[in-house]
Amino acid sequence: MPKPVPRNAFYAQSGGVTAVINASACGVIETARKHKDRIGKVYAGRNGILGALQEDLIDTSKESARDIRALRHTPAGAFGSARYKLKKFEDSTAQYERLIEVFKAHDIGYFFYNGGGDSADTCLKVAQLASRIDYPLQAIHVPKTVDNDLPLTDCCPGFGSVAKYVAVSIREAGFDVASMARTSTKVFILEVMGRHAGWIAAAGGLAAEKAGDSPQIILFPEITFDEEKFCARVKECVDRYGYCSVVVSEGVKNAEGRFLADAGTRDAFGHAQLGGVGPVVAEIVKRKLGYKYHWAVADYLQRAARHIASKVDVEQAYAVGKAAVELALKGANSVMPAIVRVSDKPYRWKIGVAKLADVANQEKKLPRDYITADGMHITAKGRRYLAPLIKGEDYPPYRDGLPQYVTLKNTPVKRRLKADFVV
Amino acid sequence: MPKPVPRNAFYAQSGGVTAVINASACGVIETARKHKDRIGKVYAGRNGILGALQEDLIDTSKESARDIRALRHTPAGAFGSARYKLKKFEDSTAQYERLIEVFKAHDIGYFFYNGGGDSADTCLKVAQLASRIDYPLQAIHVPKTVDNDLPLTDCCPGFGSVAKYVAVSIREAGFDVASMARTSTKVFILEVMGRHAGWIAAAGGLAAEKAGDSPQIILFPEITFDEEKFCARVKECVDRYGYCSVVVSEGVKNAEGRFLADAGTRDAFGHAQLGGVGPVVAEIVKRKLGYKYHWAVADYLQRAARHIASKVDVEQAYAVGKAAVELALKGANSVMPAIVRVSDKPYRWKIGVAKLADVANQEKKLPRDYITADGMHITAKGRRYLAPLIKGEDYPPYRDGLPQYVTLKNTPVKRRLKADFVV
Repeated sequence: MPKPVPRNAFYAQSGGVTAVINASACGVIETARKHKDRIGKVYAGRNGILGALQEDLIDTSKESARDIRALRHTPAGAFGSARYKLKKFEDSTAQYERLIEVFKAHDIGYFFYNGGGDSADTCLKVAQLASRIDYPLQAIHVPKTVDNDLPLTDCCPGFGSVAKYVAVSIREAGFDVASMARTSTKVFILEVMGRHAGWIAAAGGLAAEKAGDSPQIILFPEITFDEEKFCARVKECVDRYGYCSVVVSEGVKNAEGRFLADAGTRDAFGHAQLGGVGPVVAEIVKRKLGYKYHWAVADYLQRAARHIASKVDVEQAYAVGKAAVELALKGANSVMPAIVRVSDKPYRWKIGVAKLADVANQEKKLPRDYITADGMHITAKGRRYLAPLIKGEDYPPYRDGLPQYVTLKNTPVKRRLKADFVV
Repeated sequence: MPKPVPRNAFYAQSGGVTAVINASACGVIETARKHKDRIGKVYAGRNGILGALQEDLIDTSKESARDIRALRHTPAGAFGSARYKLKKFEDSTAQYERLIEVFKAHDIGYFFYNGGGDSADTCLKVAQLASRIDYPLQAIHVPKTVDNDLPLTDCCPGFGSVAKYVAVSIREAGFDVASMARTSTKVFILEVMGRHAGWIAAAGGLAAEKAGDSPQIILFPEITFDEEKFCARVKECVDRYGYCSVVVSEGVKNAEGRFLADAGTRDAFGHAQLGGVGPVVAEIVKRKLGYKYHWAVADYLQRAARHIASKVDVEQAYAVGKAAVELALKGANSVMPAIVRVSDKPYRWKIGVAKLADVANQEKKLPRDYITADGMHITAKGRRYLAPLIKGEDYPPYRDGLPQYVTLKNTPVKRRLKADFVV
């Protein structure tokens, strides 16, 4: 029997980057390099899927083993990511056809797409089109999102490290404000990401291991903001503990269903661009209670903070990248490696498989029973789920006091198509 | 010759806390414990100098050696700090007399005051009064401030760790925005502390080791904000590197000498925009250049971030605490242990001594020649000064993914005075 001829792979990063998405890239590339009889070169899309649409491919075979290894400890998207949602298949077959055309031109037989819900959907659509036109392609989605909102996986790589950053930061800030509260700041507010779901805000609750620990209050998007209840609780904390520390999700809404801080601008997907609920909540504290306050907005720092990444998260991110290639080699298509929790304590997990048809365009919501009855903290059940995800440290190497993150050469692949594609 | 009878020591933390002020406390207490023939107990002021004024002392001898050791890796002020400036000696001799009265009541012969410029001044005044009334007291100031503005010391413990936090954070956020810039955020702005001096903002510049590295722009309080020049530079960076990352000091002022943060920009609804200079600069970028932006305000996170403390900073913080006690044992009074730089490369330092009369109420300013001619970055000279201060990592211990910081028992000392003192 003739040996199968190796075909190339295409890997792209999608959506908001994380502290560990490059660890998934590392898993994909290192695993592919071990199977050169089956997988030729791994091409990466420069700026995600745009790289495929515009035939702007990066030849990862030009990178040294050492640099590829360094992806494991480098945050953000080494090949560039994109906030670019493909149109509905019915509305723009041209986009999908272009992808296949580029794949054909470069003999790409494997499509690894590293992203969230939208990219899982795209991945599935591309697989379906390829099948329809008899182009042999295996499309595997590699899960990633700080939002932790993908279904059918215990958690999403990227989330654990944001969770750890937020829990560590609010613990540290809590110590700070506690020591200043007698004569100065009494209320500290940390604004965190999570437009639609309170997963990240909930993670802040891990820092509070006993009554009175920081944070005393968490404000979730799932719970309508009640100014009176909130202020009463702040006062109670200041009276009892001398200070109050608050984690607030950017997605918190008022009784009219409006974001508490709606900047009015909109991003490429038409989502309202948020930022600034921290100062809004601080202003309420000032106006209603008169306490001196400070607020912080972590913004990109929280999802880029590779220096304080969760070891579990790094390992899972690498594992889903590796598993994606192994699944492809076993002939799988239109699937996503998923994280399966085997036990909470001790925490054990393994890699499972989810069908993309079941994954795409579904959101995993923060269960109501992870939030306390008063809507301002996490329950023991929530803690049991979240706690393992921030376990362990995985420090990057340092030189002269700074983490050494890799910037790849990102050598372009020679174009083979004549036509440009306007995105 | 009769052996000297041991006398007690009083230690207090003053002003804004840092990631390493407790390391100084650790140095004071551990060193005092080694000299029980000379120093009886170390009493700490609950909430800084208020603890002395109100005779609210903490008996640190009740703490285990292990917990005192843990102060070395615990951020913020373990005994409480205070933003409380004593009045001028001429205006309120009562405050100073009360301090001496409390010291007398508890046989305190050593006063270790851990703070910035104001507390150096207080320390000196207390020593002068004690001398005038023949109360035997040795007053030693232990330097601390994230602002790095004390004279006669190469740097201030607390600064190196904020510097490292800011440099690491802006490097990480730079990687993030660089990977998103093609389709999303092009400009990232990180607001940092430093109302009067740009030391902390300057430290962000360490992350940029070669042209194009993040941050491309630093905005200093020392340089009047020039909107046109700033916008031109942002555009140049976006054109050349695809993105632009900015560190802005909270103290940046406009041509009228007003803080940019107070410049009164308004949102779409005409509401005064809340909060810091970060969002104000972001709004300028949006309005003038139309780029999508993100901003972060690090606030307390930067000075509480013990998880990413500089090893040099931790060592220096401990060393000045230890040296304060050793100086006292040698009979010194009205002095401050100072850090003396012996060489830049390799970085070597030792402990020297500064007279409080020379320290009090002086500010060390950021030299103009640490800032580039265009006013938007640091020079090689600035880098040479700053680089050693962030060197080395000194990770706290972790359990279940969270740093284990100590909360002391803080047992009160029985009061001996009848009168209360109203502060």
